[in-house]
Amino acid sequence: MKKNAIIFLLLCWANTQLMADDGYRLWLKYDLLSNVTQRTQYKNQVNAIAIGSNSLVLQTAAKELQLGLQGLLGKSIAVNMGKGGKGVLLLSVNPTDEAVQNLAADGFAIVQRNQQWMVVSKTDNGVLYGCFTLLRQVKLGTAFKQQRYSESPKIRLRMLNHWDNPLGTIERGYAGSSLWKWYELPEVIDPRYIDYARANASVGINAVVLNNVNASARFLTKEYLVKVKALAEVFRPYGIKVFLSLNFASPKILDKIPTSDPLDSRVVEWWKNKTAEIYSIIPDFGGYLVKANSEGEPGPQDYGRTHADGANMLASALAPHNGLVIWRAFVYAADPKGDRFKEAYKDFKPLDGKFASNALVQVKNGPIDFQSREPFHPLFGKMPQTPLAMEFQLTQEYLGFSTNWVYEAPLFKECLESDTYAKGKGSTVAKVIDGSLDNHAWSAMAGVANTGSDRNWTGHTMAQANWYAFGRLAWNYDLTSEQIAEEWIQQSLTQHPQTVGIIKELMLKSREIYVDFTTPLGLHHVMGQNIHFGAEPWLEKSARPDWTAIYYHRADSLGLGFDRTSKGSNALSLYAPEVQQLWGDAQKCPLPYLLWFHHVPWTQKLSTGNTLWDEFSSRYYKGVASVAWMQQQWEQTKPHLDQAIFTDVKGRLAVQHREALNWRDACVLYFQQYAKQPIPKPYEKPTRTLDELKKIVEIYQLK
Amino acid sequence: MKKNAIIFLLLCWANTQLMADDGYRLWLKYDLLSNVTQRTQYKNQVNAIAIGSNSLVLQTAAKELQLGLQGLLGKSIAVNMGKGGKGVLLLSVNPTDEAVQNLAADGFAIVQRNQQWMVVSKTDNGVLYGCFTLLRQVKLGTAFKQQRYSESPKIRLRMLNHWDNPLGTIERGYAGSSLWKWYELPEVIDPRYIDYARANASVGINAVVLNNVNASARFLTKEYLVKVKALAEVFRPYGIKVFLSLNFASPKILDKIPTSDPLDSRVVEWWKNKTAEIYSIIPDFGGYLVKANSEGEPGPQDYGRTHADGANMLASALAPHNGLVIWRAFVYAADPKGDRFKEAYKDFKPLDGKFASNALVQVKNGPIDFQSREPFHPLFGKMPQTPLAMEFQLTQEYLGFSTNWVYEAPLFKECLESDTYAKGKGSTVAKVIDGSLDNHAWSAMAGVANTGSDRNWTGHTMAQANWYAFGRLAWNYDLTSEQIAEEWIQQSLTQHPQTVGIIKELMLKSREIYVDFTTPLGLHHVMGQNIHFGAEPWLEKSARPDWTAIYYHRADSLGLGFDRTSKGSNALSLYAPEVQQLWGDAQKCPLPYLLWFHHVPWTQKLSTGNTLWDEFSSRYYKGVASVAWMQQQWEQTKPHLDQAIFTDVKGRLAVQHREALNWRDACVLYFQQYAKQPIPKPYEKPTRTLDELKKIVEIYQLK
Repeated sequence: MKKNAIIFLLLCWANTQLMADDGYRLWLKYDLLSNVTQRTQYKNQVNAIAIGSNSLVLQTAAKELQLGLQGLLGKSIAVNMGKGGKGVLLLSVNPTDEAVQNLAADGFAIVQRNQQWMVVSKTDNGVLYGCFTLLRQVKLGTAFKQQRYSESPKIRLRMLNHWDNPLGTIERGYAGSSLWKWYELPEVIDPRYIDYARANASVGINAVVLNNVNASARFLTKEYLVKVKALAEVFRPYGIKVFLSLNFASPKILDKIPTSDPLDSRVVEWWKNKTAEIYSIIPDFGGYLVKANSEGEPGPQDYGRTHADGANMLASALAPHNGLVIWRAFVYAADPKGDRFKEAYKDFKPLDGKFASNALVQVKNGPIDFQSREPFHPLFGKMPQTPLAMEFQLTQEYLGFSTNWVYEAPLFKECLESDTYAKGKGSTVAKVIDGSLDNHAWSAMAGVANTGSDRNWTGHTMAQANWYAFGRLAWNYDLTSEQIAEEWIQQSLTQHPQTVGIIKELMLKSREIYVDFTTPLGLHHVMGQNIHFGAEPWLEKSARPDWTAIYYHRADSLGLGFDRTSKGSNALSLYAPEVQQLWGDAQKCPLPYLLWFHHVPWTQKLSTGNTLWDEFSSRYYKGVASVAWMQQQWEQTKPHLDQAIFTDVKGRLAVQHREALNWRDACVLYFQQYAKQPIPKPYEKPTRTLDELKKIVEIYQLK
Repeated sequence: MKKNAIIFLLLCWANTQLMADDGYRLWLKYDLLSNVTQRTQYKNQVNAIAIGSNSLVLQTAAKELQLGLQGLLGKSIAVNMGKGGKGVLLLSVNPTDEAVQNLAADGFAIVQRNQQWMVVSKTDNGVLYGCFTLLRQVKLGTAFKQQRYSESPKIRLRMLNHWDNPLGTIERGYAGSSLWKWYELPEVIDPRYIDYARANASVGINAVVLNNVNASARFLTKEYLVKVKALAEVFRPYGIKVFLSLNFASPKILDKIPTSDPLDSRVVEWWKNKTAEIYSIIPDFGGYLVKANSEGEPGPQDYGRTHADGANMLASALAPHNGLVIWRAFVYAADPKGDRFKEAYKDFKPLDGKFASNALVQVKNGPIDFQSREPFHPLFGKMPQTPLAMEFQLTQEYLGFSTNWVYEAPLFKECLESDTYAKGKGSTVAKVIDGSLDNHAWSAMAGVANTGSDRNWTGHTMAQANWYAFGRLAWNYDLTSEQIAEEWIQQSLTQHPQTVGIIKELMLKSREIYVDFTTPLGLHHVMGQNIHFGAEPWLEKSARPDWTAIYYHRADSLGLGFDRTSKGSNALSLYAPEVQQLWGDAQKCPLPYLLWFHHVPWTQKLSTGNTLWDEFSSRYYKGVASVAWMQQQWEQTKPHLDQAIFTDVKGRLAVQHREALNWRDACVLYFQQYAKQPIPKPYEKPTRTLDELKKIVEIYQLK
């Protein structure tokens, strides 16, 4: 080899190494392991991969494992058919293997037998998940430690819900435009579709709803179904099923049927035929997600029918094809004297037991709408005869878009670990959702996706962790937020121990910090109108009373907060008595939920020793100070991170600090008008006036 | 060097080479020249770069030249201060250098003196353009051939207009979301902003309007001006000035001034102060672009004032800062009995001579709205006392979005080369625009950008050529479409001679093919409502009569086309007599413009020997066949193109073929109802019914 050539290669190499990390690879970074001892050890374990069958998903599993191991270990690894032998990693689908007997269908075991390692599962998907797990273990240095390692998913349907519109916009999306290029499909397959599927499969996500729940009927036309089919074909090798959101008035919209009444035989027939058509095009189609009679969408109530009537009509059309209907419980009539908190319960609780066996009801984690903190939804535990699916929101509609750093695992887990007491102590929301409490065959957890066309998928690099965490928790909600953060950081950012520690601490504290500078002590729904950005606690008028801020915070000269006890709206009564006891007494109610359930006098002493006003206003100041602390901490990561990612996150933290100051000053000045008390020491009065802050928020309401 | 290390490096290198081309680098691909002889020759010419001053733009020029030459030549090239000497390429700003005496400010010369090459210009920008030109010449193998090579731009302001909205959507954008991340600015600077500026500067674009002409007032708030400033700071080193579109009602919207009357002193004062504020933040701010009293936007006519009143009020606020106001002439009152063709002329022609010296009037290339072919706008040549800016549309609103391949240089040149006869033969539109016909100090050409957040910037890879061609033509409209295509292909795709030839032919024919299968013989405005996609010639009702299709095509049992002669709307009379003669006689009117000006009997014999109906319907069939031909030709490029690009374009051509069939069948079946004649042989009647085709278009009108 000539010297020149070597120098040229060196230049190439340097170029590869110096290339800034644009975040595109997410947590799937199969770069050479830097720990040489470990790399050598792993290299000796695996010389080749063997697969026993040639199914699509198994081929994917082998290919991903090959790609990953080659990158991590820096050696070439062949994939062969057959069983292999010593040093050959076997991927085996074998429902009768004793190692997988006690596992769910998608569970897997990584076992060593006769000096051969194998990934075994009852299903192809299980092997795929086993392979991704093995890659993660190799990256983290925990592979091949036990002769038998196994995992089993707790939730059967682990799905993303995309609120993506046909023209490429995303409702509540903050990371560019939709990943799906509907005009280009089916002929053009963006390579990104494959990378999207890989990322999902790597964390166990096995279903996606492609389109917005405020659904265009066009997705049910033949023209669009062939586009959907093209995506389904990309996702199928990754074990991912495709669902569609539907518009309940489709028979009317698409074929001029005079009604969409779910009990009308023409409508029944229409859906039966349409569903059969879909399955003739996409044989493994997952089913429908439905937003009906909610925020202006059509639904069965337009014809005096119930949500169950609507769901069951669709369930019946889907049943012959083993499809599912997932019916959303996000409904709320506009009642200025009512309490939106109770609306979904009122509509759905009486329908328990009336849904078909292939229908699930999808419930948002809380009763209002993805606030930074909500009590768990009162329907959890109250519909034992109905499988309830969880709906979490990954996209940061109420969490500062893509300019705020909020690690959501603690938020998700807070809900999942809440005790409904439905069947006594320990009846957690998680056990309602996973079907174990009431013995349901189906279980589902949905995350409203935070993905978009931005190069790094999620806008804020740190928001990648929310996609990751959602998948991991849907697989196993017993993982701690800390475990997931640690895994994610090591795969995505760095393995430098101190830096991992710094970032992990930032992640774990980020949500509470966000709560502090926006809606402390259980304040909720005081964000900017429509856009849901910034503070607008002064919002008094909107198209609906329950879209204002004053409907929720109820500030007056006496105090602050929404009385949901029996003296107020009595929403608390929707919960089990134990829960009522937990939250029902203003003196004992945990502070994070205080203003959710009580109208508390400004002067009331809280458990912290401060009055409500002092504690409440101090939280805003502490929240802002915490963002400054985040900025300082982040500076320390600089020597150990890719500089493109470091700089990007640093910039976003600076934006977050500016926005936190706006939130603080707006809320403190606005509520001070009612509390009529000074800013508690040692904090200084905002230098800006309330009018100045109102102007800042008004900008976002302009065309 | 160990053998292992070498193999490792080899792997890295292979990896770099095999990486699919995602189109991100556009035409700025500085890979090692494959022609070794040429590379060696160039290597010997340049050992270092010298700059005489340290201005921002000169630094950029040196950095770009260094980066480019290092990549192309595979050698390290230093940049030093000073004048250098033999083998040192000197970048020199010297207004008194004899080589640049006859050049415009931004012109440059590349000259050899005393065995030293230098790029010299009167301005920093000129040197920058000279450097990019030199890089292009090195890539194309035409560098250092003459001892003196010089260029001079024909148009002073070469600008992109972004119709980008504050929330990240783009009006008529088909390549993802906006490049500008308003929520993240000013703290987060997306590295992509820099690459955008590089691409623009490389083709001489020196101004950008950041926001949609349907403008949000928010861009004039202090909060947004600091964001605009951040972008201006990224663009400044590339010689690019920032403009803003403004909302004429801003004084009312932002500061509750009770009026926006341009003659009201409070309004005058408001704009004076606002403009001063902008310049205090962005000292080299370019000025305002205004859409007023057009399609619902506010404007001076709301107060009984003229467009000139509005423009001059702003011009007066801008004058102390050397800013410009660019006032759009795209206005048209809704008159069911009128002819939209004449509306802008009616409003603007009487205002000639009434605009301030720092005001330009921006006119779309044609009188209607960016159709695939339009006669030149009748205002060109009719406002000699007013500098008219050209507005072309790069984004393919009426050209099949990003699924159709239309190389627009022939379309742009067709307009620029049209003769207005304003001052006798040879008074081309180009000479009106460049100011030479009427001796204007200012000249401008604007392109409505086709860029977006898609990785390859423009959705269709081939649409990158339209961005490129716009810049090149704004610099020098005498370049042929073929020259520009050839340059672009060689820089962007391949230098393989036969493949360059194939792609060039496809590019040059693409626009005429698109015309054939959508709107042959001068048919216009028969596209799908609102969305402007697909065919909808049957559109009879819309919010405005001039938003329907029948308003334009006027099909009846006798014939087809809009009679704009003296027997009809007499729009022809707006043109010079020579032009009236050219287009006025239905027997002699060139076929591409026939239906623009005449209602032609179905049975009339055309110059082709066919009747109107036969020629008209045959064009659709030929157009579809031509798309099939494009597909076949494209297949031949496969061995010589990056496979990612090959596959992507192949897919898009397949979509285009499907859409072409839809256009053909829809139009042939619809107009056949009036012509009442058979499809001419050898073509076959469409297998689909008109109702089926209507359904396909209806899909795109659904929510």
